[in-house]
Amino acid sequence: MKKIIDDSKTLVSDMLKGYAEAYSDRVRLVEPNLLCRAENKQKGKVGVIIGNGSGHEPAMVDLVGKGLFDVNVVGKIFTAPPPYEILEGIKLADCGAGVLVMVSSHQGDILNSRMAIMLAKAEGINAKMVILYDDIYSAPKGQEEERRGTAGLFFCWKIVCAAAEQGSDLDTCIRIAEKVRDNTRTLSVAVESGTNPETGLKTFELPDDEIEVGMGVHGEAGKGRMKLTTANEVVEYMIKELVEDKPFNPGDDVMVLLNNSGSTTRMELMIIYKNIAEYLKKLGINIIRNWVGTYVTTQEMSGFSISLCKADSEMLSYYDFPADSPLF
Amino acid sequence: MKKIIDDSKTLVSDMLKGYAEAYSDRVRLVEPNLLCRAENKQKGKVGVIIGNGSGHEPAMVDLVGKGLFDVNVVGKIFTAPPPYEILEGIKLADCGAGVLVMVSSHQGDILNSRMAIMLAKAEGINAKMVILYDDIYSAPKGQEEERRGTAGLFFCWKIVCAAAEQGSDLDTCIRIAEKVRDNTRTLSVAVESGTNPETGLKTFELPDDEIEVGMGVHGEAGKGRMKLTTANEVVEYMIKELVEDKPFNPGDDVMVLLNNSGSTTRMELMIIYKNIAEYLKKLGINIIRNWVGTYVTTQEMSGFSISLCKADSEMLSYYDFPADSPLF
Repeated sequence: MKKIIDDSKTLVSDMLKGYAEAYSDRVRLVEPNLLCRAENKQKGKVGVIIGNGSGHEPAMVDLVGKGLFDVNVVGKIFTAPPPYEILEGIKLADCGAGVLVMVSSHQGDILNSRMAIMLAKAEGINAKMVILYDDIYSAPKGQEEERRGTAGLFFCWKIVCAAAEQGSDLDTCIRIAEKVRDNTRTLSVAVESGTNPETGLKTFELPDDEIEVGMGVHGEAGKGRMKLTTANEVVEYMIKELVEDKPFNPGDDVMVLLNNSGSTTRMELMIIYKNIAEYLKKLGINIIRNWVGTYVTTQEMSGFSISLCKADSEMLSYYDFPADSPLF
Repeated sequence: MKKIIDDSKTLVSDMLKGYAEAYSDRVRLVEPNLLCRAENKQKGKVGVIIGNGSGHEPAMVDLVGKGLFDVNVVGKIFTAPPPYEILEGIKLADCGAGVLVMVSSHQGDILNSRMAIMLAKAEGINAKMVILYDDIYSAPKGQEEERRGTAGLFFCWKIVCAAAEQGSDLDTCIRIAEKVRDNTRTLSVAVESGTNPETGLKTFELPDDEIEVGMGVHGEAGKGRMKLTTANEVVEYMIKELVEDKPFNPGDDVMVLLNNSGSTTRMELMIIYKNIAEYLKKLGINIIRNWVGTYVTTQEMSGFSISLCKADSEMLSYYDFPADSPLF
């Protein structure tokens, strides 16, 4: 493994110390692994937190800040943090108006968040959770609740955190989260594997002339492989699948997230985006917002995902609400 | 080569179309390869432009916008644009107060920019250039003018563009550019090669247990190789070299740029930054600003560079001046 680190045993704590040092004006590290906003708590605000495995940076460390999360509970590499750590996160985020745990659907994250919420309730905190998913290849249509959470969750995170910042109550935040989730779909493509920074092992193997379609953010298997081909053909395939899963009709307004899984170049992203824009135009679907860049990675994996979210005016106003983190 | 593109012959124009589509609120593409601001020209403002080879994205496409460059003349992969294209860029940026061409020191860029300036003058435009360099391993101390331009030029670009935006005249912009340049030093490390997206060839080869020190942004040879070691040891070596080349004394304020050359993970960057902060603290040097992220790449090359710039209050005020592009 050719990574520039100090010690594979202290990877996460070293990273968090570096992050807190680099952005000390924005965040504070509650050691060992809770990142929270540097500013004082806003009384009466719904606290919004997320617990997740690390290794996906900038997700989620770069999403703590004004207009974004109050707390990120950072687990070990690709591993959900345990319930008592999420509980600490809930307590840190609690400003008296309840705490929302926004869970990316993976078994460990769901189980541990659920337990943390029970513990928080026992301590008198009104904590609730919402389970988020978007990856259309991880379970068939009709079984959306069994799908994994991937890059498309950024829509939900950005929008719900903004709603909380502007004073929405806990149940309103949950309603908005579910609405955004139910209007979001993602499909991803893996081109080359990244390396687990703890073990030094590749997360998967792919032949030189093939790409994997539908792979999860930890290298979970997709639905199959296709031959390496042009951006045009890959994008057409992906958009067709996305549109079929959740009909986005001509005239609809969508937000697009084109996410780099790690080492895909910005040049490629722009060529891919050109095809997305052309293909959606052909379908009569309007792009009204876009994010094109590196949002959630699987270390230096090469690949990308396309997420579409059908937008309404409530979502857009929160999407546009100012946020302050290195990512926004 | 495993890249998701459409055609290696139309790489740059495909990328630029995608970029202009994605950021149509900010930029306008004057085909085939001039990116300029979407907004109308500001009469009486010094125009600031740069011409450069592509393949380094986000540099420099992501630096066109309010508070940044007026025009980016985008060359072919790793190749300076020809003089007549730079001339077109100068004309586009001209608002009647002169145009500054900020050249990253590479032979082709210097020659072609110089010729473009002669042509512009012949057409009555007051165009000037400033040659920028920062890479301490590309020529010895005392021969700074022979050094290459690398990531540290971001300080100069951000600061001088802000000065122009705030109404500084052409000669003031040049004075500031030279001051920032003369206070900036960069050293880079390459860990693994990227791939030229046109030819499909790696730009260099490195053994599995070695890294190259001092490599340029096109894969130009550095000063030698060292064994792959800890972040701590690599950073200590690099900072020592930087400080020795240009004594940053205890008590000095510096701006730090830690740049990802392509596929170095954000986790690694944070661990590297932790070491930079600790080591500079030990030397009594104060970090007053930092950028940690992906600024100039050599495609998906793995590696990073550290740039230090000794700051004064004039530089800081322009550094902090608002800018609007996907990168800032």
